[in-house]
Amino acid sequence: MNPMKKVVLAYSGGLDTSFCAVYLSKDKGYEVHAVTVNTGGFSAEDIVAIEKRAYELGVHSYTCVDAVQTYYDTCVKYLIYGNVLKNNTYPLSVSAERTIQAKSIAGYAKSINADAIAHGSTGAGNDQVRFDVIFSVMCPTIEIITPIRDLKLSREAEIDFLKANKVEMNFDKALYSINKGLWGTSVGGKETLTSNLSLPEASFPSQLEKTEADKTEITLEFKQGELVAVDNTSFSHPSEAILYLEQLATPFAIGRDIHVGDTIVGIKGRVGFEAASALIILKAHHLLEKHTLSKFQLNLKSQLADWYGTWLHEGLFLDPVMRDIETFFANTQSTVNGKVTVTLLPYRFVLNGIESNNDLMASKFGSYGEMNLTWSGEDVKGYSKIISNSLAIYNQVNPDKL
Amino acid sequence: MNPMKKVVLAYSGGLDTSFCAVYLSKDKGYEVHAVTVNTGGFSAEDIVAIEKRAYELGVHSYTCVDAVQTYYDTCVKYLIYGNVLKNNTYPLSVSAERTIQAKSIAGYAKSINADAIAHGSTGAGNDQVRFDVIFSVMCPTIEIITPIRDLKLSREAEIDFLKANKVEMNFDKALYSINKGLWGTSVGGKETLTSNLSLPEASFPSQLEKTEADKTEITLEFKQGELVAVDNTSFSHPSEAILYLEQLATPFAIGRDIHVGDTIVGIKGRVGFEAASALIILKAHHLLEKHTLSKFQLNLKSQLADWYGTWLHEGLFLDPVMRDIETFFANTQSTVNGKVTVTLLPYRFVLNGIESNNDLMASKFGSYGEMNLTWSGEDVKGYSKIISNSLAIYNQVNPDKL
Amino acid sequence: MNPMKKVVLAYSGGLDTSFCAVYLSKDKGYEVHAVTVNTGGFSAEDIVAIEKRAYELGVHSYTCVDAVQTYYDTCVKYLIYGNVLKNNTYPLSVSAERTIQAKSIAGYAKSINADAIAHGSTGAGNDQVRFDVIFSVMCPTIEIITPIRDLKLSREAEIDFLKANKVEMNFDKALYSINKGLWGTSVGGKETLTSNLSLPEASFPSQLEKTEADKTEITLEFKQGELVAVDNTSFSHPSEAILYLEQLATPFAIGRDIHVGDTIVGIKGRVGFEAASALIILKAHHLLEKHTLSKFQLNLKSQLADWYGTWLHEGLFLDPVMRDIETFFANTQSTVNGKVTVTLLPYRFVLNGIESNNDLMASKFGSYGEMNLTWSGEDVKGYSKIISNSLAIYNQVNPDKL
Amino acid sequence: MNPMKKVVLAYSGGLDTSFCAVYLSKDKGYEVHAVTVNTGGFSAEDIVAIEKRAYELGVHSYTCVDAVQTYYDTCVKYLIYGNVLKNNTYPLSVSAERTIQAKSIAGYAKSINADAIAHGSTGAGNDQVRFDVIFSVMCPTIEIITPIRDLKLSREAEIDFLKANKVEMNFDKALYSINKGLWGTSVGGKETLTSNLSLPEASFPSQLEKTEADKTEITLEFKQGELVAVDNTSFSHPSEAILYLEQLATPFAIGRDIHVGDTIVGIKGRVGFEAASALIILKAHHLLEKHTLSKFQLNLKSQLADWYGTWLHEGLFLDPVMRDIETFFANTQSTVNGKVTVTLLPYRFVLNGIESNNDLMASKFGSYGEMNLTWSGEDVKGYSKIISNSLAIYNQVNPDKL
Repeated sequence: MNPMKKVVLAYSGGLDTSFCAVYLSKDKGYEVHAVTVNTGGFSAEDIVAIEKRAYELGVHSYTCVDAVQTYYDTCVKYLIYGNVLKNNTYPLSVSAERTIQAKSIAGYAKSINADAIAHGSTGAGNDQVRFDVIFSVMCPTIEIITPIRDLKLSREAEIDFLKANKVEMNFDKALYSINKGLWGTSVGGKETLTSNLSLPEASFPSQLEKTEADKTEITLEFKQGELVAVDNTSFSHPSEAILYLEQLATPFAIGRDIHVGDTIVGIKGRVGFEAASALIILKAHHLLEKHTLSKFQLNLKSQLADWYGTWLHEGLFLDPVMRDIETFFANTQSTVNGKVTVTLLPYRFVLNGIESNNDLMASKFGSYGEMNLTWSGEDVKGYSKIISNSLAIYNQVNPDKL
Repeated sequence: MNPMKKVVLAYSGGLDTSFCAVYLSKDKGYEVHAVTVNTGGFSAEDIVAIEKRAYELGVHSYTCVDAVQTYYDTCVKYLIYGNVLKNNTYPLSVSAERTIQAKSIAGYAKSINADAIAHGSTGAGNDQVRFDVIFSVMCPTIEIITPIRDLKLSREAEIDFLKANKVEMNFDKALYSINKGLWGTSVGGKETLTSNLSLPEASFPSQLEKTEADKTEITLEFKQGELVAVDNTSFSHPSEAILYLEQLATPFAIGRDIHVGDTIVGIKGRVGFEAASALIILKAHHLLEKHTLSKFQLNLKSQLADWYGTWLHEGLFLDPVMRDIETFFANTQSTVNGKVTVTLLPYRFVLNGIESNNDLMASKFGSYGEMNLTWSGEDVKGYSKIISNSLAIYNQVNPDKL
Repeated sequence: MNPMKKVVLAYSGGLDTSFCAVYLSKDKGYEVHAVTVNTGGFSAEDIVAIEKRAYELGVHSYTCVDAVQTYYDTCVKYLIYGNVLKNNTYPLSVSAERTIQAKSIAGYAKSINADAIAHGSTGAGNDQVRFDVIFSVMCPTIEIITPIRDLKLSREAEIDFLKANKVEMNFDKALYSINKGLWGTSVGGKETLTSNLSLPEASFPSQLEKTEADKTEITLEFKQGELVAVDNTSFSHPSEAILYLEQLATPFAIGRDIHVGDTIVGIKGRVGFEAASALIILKAHHLLEKHTLSKFQLNLKSQLADWYGTWLHEGLFLDPVMRDIETFFANTQSTVNGKVTVTLLPYRFVLNGIESNNDLMASKFGSYGEMNLTWSGEDVKGYSKIISNSLAIYNQVNPDKL
Repeated sequence: MNPMKKVVLAYSGGLDTSFCAVYLSKDKGYEVHAVTVNTGGFSAEDIVAIEKRAYELGVHSYTCVDAVQTYYDTCVKYLIYGNVLKNNTYPLSVSAERTIQAKSIAGYAKSINADAIAHGSTGAGNDQVRFDVIFSVMCPTIEIITPIRDLKLSREAEIDFLKANKVEMNFDKALYSINKGLWGTSVGGKETLTSNLSLPEASFPSQLEKTEADKTEITLEFKQGELVAVDNTSFSHPSEAILYLEQLATPFAIGRDIHVGDTIVGIKGRVGFEAASALIILKAHHLLEKHTLSKFQLNLKSQLADWYGTWLHEGLFLDPVMRDIETFFANTQSTVNGKVTVTLLPYRFVLNGIESNNDLMASKFGSYGEMNLTWSGEDVKGYSKIISNSLAIYNQVNPDKL
């Protein structure tokens, strides 16, 4: 007798992956192993419900991998080190999550000697590429199956199929597509399909609960670039600090924006997001760096961060250059220690300042604009003279250039 | 008889340059030609008062050069093209102003065959370098005189000297040092000399005059990267549009922050600023670019902009590479046309969206995430396959790297 | 009656495109318009023979586009401005040629309202992508046909087909695949498929004809970065100067090397080349730039050149950023004027020096290492002091870092 | 009784530092501690003679620090990792040596509690800045003394002073100034002060001793980017491999050139050099990297290497960003293992190829240009389609751009 082939299905509990679960087990005869990789978006109750549904759909096994700490340790940490904001706006939450989820799924598939991996991506977006690439690289001998993409199914066709298979679930289309995780929540739909409209308040999963009168000053403490405490509360892992800060800041409706960027498939895309914790941490961390790193460190970090973000976004996380950049980032962080005070207000936050033993402003060399003992006006005249030399020669030789 | 030597004095009407006017004319016997270069910070009344005071101090001539349009045309324009924010925060208003002022002073000095140029810089800050370098390069045969720097004078010594010379002016030290211009107003003093304190409301020249209820949606229209209209009001020169927007936005107390950066002399410095118009324009312009430029254009522009800002800041505006970067920037702007809608609110603004005939999102190629006719899931599979190749080979050859 | 569909065939006269000519006309019933785009690799006699053969194969029309000057004006010129050598070795001759050939073919196809464009690429190399992309972008409504790639034909199958169709041509496989053009000749085969073997002398189309005793000093004259004369012989177009220099230098067997690089399809590839004229011009031009450009110009040019070369190589010539880089390059060249003397020797050349009115070394500011009048040791002390400040502060604040 | 002040003199035995030795001990009453830091340029006999002379000049102590391995470990290693050639030509031998010598001198001065450090630099060159900066940063409380620079002494004045002090040494001026070390030998004088003349054979310390008939194939073996063996001869430290290769290659007169670059003081300078070992190692190492690193690793390494070389050259070795770059470089080298075969010929060398277990060309994915099993022509069509999308949209929206 022919043993059933094993497929690992990247399963989120939504319409597309529910379709895949039924289609692969019933129509295709696979032994389906559904796996949800939790990168911070699912509560314990969510997981219970997702698991229950998975078995109803006919999967052979269901596994939820808690990847929150792994996600932080292998990706979010470096996004913080690099102050990475795609196009100066977006914390790359979805790009980062899909990458780490794909890595986790691939590892699981190898561990059970799966014959195939399935994902529910359509042919239209970025995620398919991230999944395809990471699976191809990490398990080149395992087949990749993408029923939605291959069958070019419409939403209606998927629903009809599920209903025909006696699946009962809420088939109403949500007005907005939401993706939640440790590093932010994306919001897509309706207005984000236009160039000119902003998202209405109601489209965001969280809602403003605070007024100007509630303004709160908090203190973030960083050790070697990592957030270790908020308001003197320490955490055993930085991911917990991120989640704690999220609870403090989200009622202020902080960190909302719309990102406009280049999708991997070459068209421009727009996505809304709310990411209170990510935005506050990135900006506070960057401020602390401005006090504690040299100007050339700041400069090169910024250029490498652009590449890191771009390649993460484009599915190239496994390129060895990413490990090299991470090493560079990590090496810069040894002096990024100290506290940053931040005031939370409705829809915004203000960085008040920092305190750090590594603060390069606090040295005995004197304050900017105040004269001091370590250099003289004559020194600066000499400096000006020397840096003028090349410009003066250029303009003497090429007098028409002035 | 020995004719008097002519010195051109970069004159702002403050304590330092007032000292220089008296010292150079009375103690040193120069024929002093005081010149104020207005880059948008002085009103007509200011100039009348400055001129009157100059003559009281004994200058031989006084000239005010209206450089607002020149300032825009030769510098601010490129800061907008490049979305230049130093350390991701500061519009470089003072760096840019000093540069253009120095160029204007140098041109004036050459036009009257001056023997010397004087500036009132101390030995502690950035401005001395910008003045020194531009004068050295543009007029290498004209002597540079810097009495405050050379005499290492304290504020008190300057005041005593002026009083001894019967000068009557307000000698009270302002709590904050303010520098106003077309591209923003800097605020330094007290808190900015620390690392941990933020500036109080009262330290800013403008004050909040609006409430949430006053929120206003405005439209900025760009042609080839330049702001040509605000709310359907067109302007004969973009500098007028900037000033007009400043009047709309400043009552909202928008665009305030503290910049922490590396001074030319090597120490970290902190400076507050308010720059409502600059911040709104830069962010609106950048958003329009995200819709109208290719990803590689956005990427390289960002890298070149870092250098442009750094070299402008460090007094190297006359390096020919700056002209090359400007050419690059200008070439990218041909498609940066359209309207950006912005909502003004107390202390913040929101970019709502854009409308543009050059919008790369608005094409018939379909919206992101929605399947369409111009490519298929098979195409993306092929794409994923090809970009996986190099990663898969690397990890096959180096199996320990996964 | 159904009119025949018109296909434009990118035709070189080799086995693959000969197969296409017969297959498309006889088997597929197309009206085949064969086009050869000469980027410097074909002599007049070559073209006569290629044309004759084309008609024998059954094409409806044959056209040879002389694109040598266009090739220089739109591509080679910028490779010289940028001193572009891929991986510091390869002048990108094939990448550049295919790009310009594809543009020319696309223009021709539009001009005759073709229904399709065919190219003879296999599925293994870089050229297919360059052709595909440029055709897709320039004529998105014209079908692209690639018989060799689609039918996955072996060489033997192609030969059998042609013999069956009574085509008589030399079916012997050349030991090396040669591609000749204005900017160099590539040589692939046998040894280049390994990592460890170098190409034998006999594999190169040209052979050494000179001895050490024949060593020759020549002078290259550049105006605004373009080669305008060799040894006082002026040319009406720089492409003629390139070809003239090629004749002088090729008998010295100069400019041979093997390039190892990343193909578009993701694997490493190796290709030999001889490019005497290209290598001499690039190195002479770069030397002239070292004398006439500022250090920051040299620095940014080099970084932009890396991108220009990479994107040209990868089929992205039509990205608008390429035009922006070209503008930057062109702007830098206004001072790149003068003469470079070069000694030609067997297998190598030596750059002796330059003469230029724009030479920044020749100014009155004095020679390096000789003391002079424009700055003093005190100035340098001041300079050293100021640039030490930030490093000294860093190490004072972080004493463990030394 | 007042104890004598201790000065550490960076002493090479040449005219300038001999003057300093006498001047500081006799005229200034210092206890002079002469220190020579050997970075590979001095033989044991040289050192004996230098020491003898030092005591004749009146120094209190003489020390020779053998810094060859330290020089390699802290600097040359990273220049190899980064394939650093300044302006694509010069291995930065002098810049690197001065830096490491200055660090060693500063360490020595701290160890003996010196009151001052003296160096013999004039006010004209680069070295003064490297010495000044490293001393200022590493021992900010120790005075820096530069008699030649301060006294603005001519060569003749120095000689007169030494003769008056009964010093007997060879006062003939060498035709060329030579600086020898592990990473190459610089040659300056006469022709290098012009822009147009090349150095004559006789100006180089080594002379050609081989003919074409002597051509020799050698094998360099790298482990993690470091040269560990030449022709199967292993070495206990890579610096020994470098010196061994130098002996093999120098008789071929390999690695000679003239570097044209921007001096720290802002003028263009020219310096000749011979660096057979450095050039062969750098090019062989780079070739091995082209086979073993990803394209993005090669790309970013090249950009970081430009900065590393520039900052090393400009005296900024102690900036913490240099340590970050070194970390990046080191991380890339784990796969840079294998053998490179090189043929040595008079005045030139040829890289024949490599063998490596980490060779990305040698994988089972098939050779470039040969069809294979891991991807299909359809995959490439999909790839071409997807990368065309953004270009096609751009040109559809902006039809005037084609």
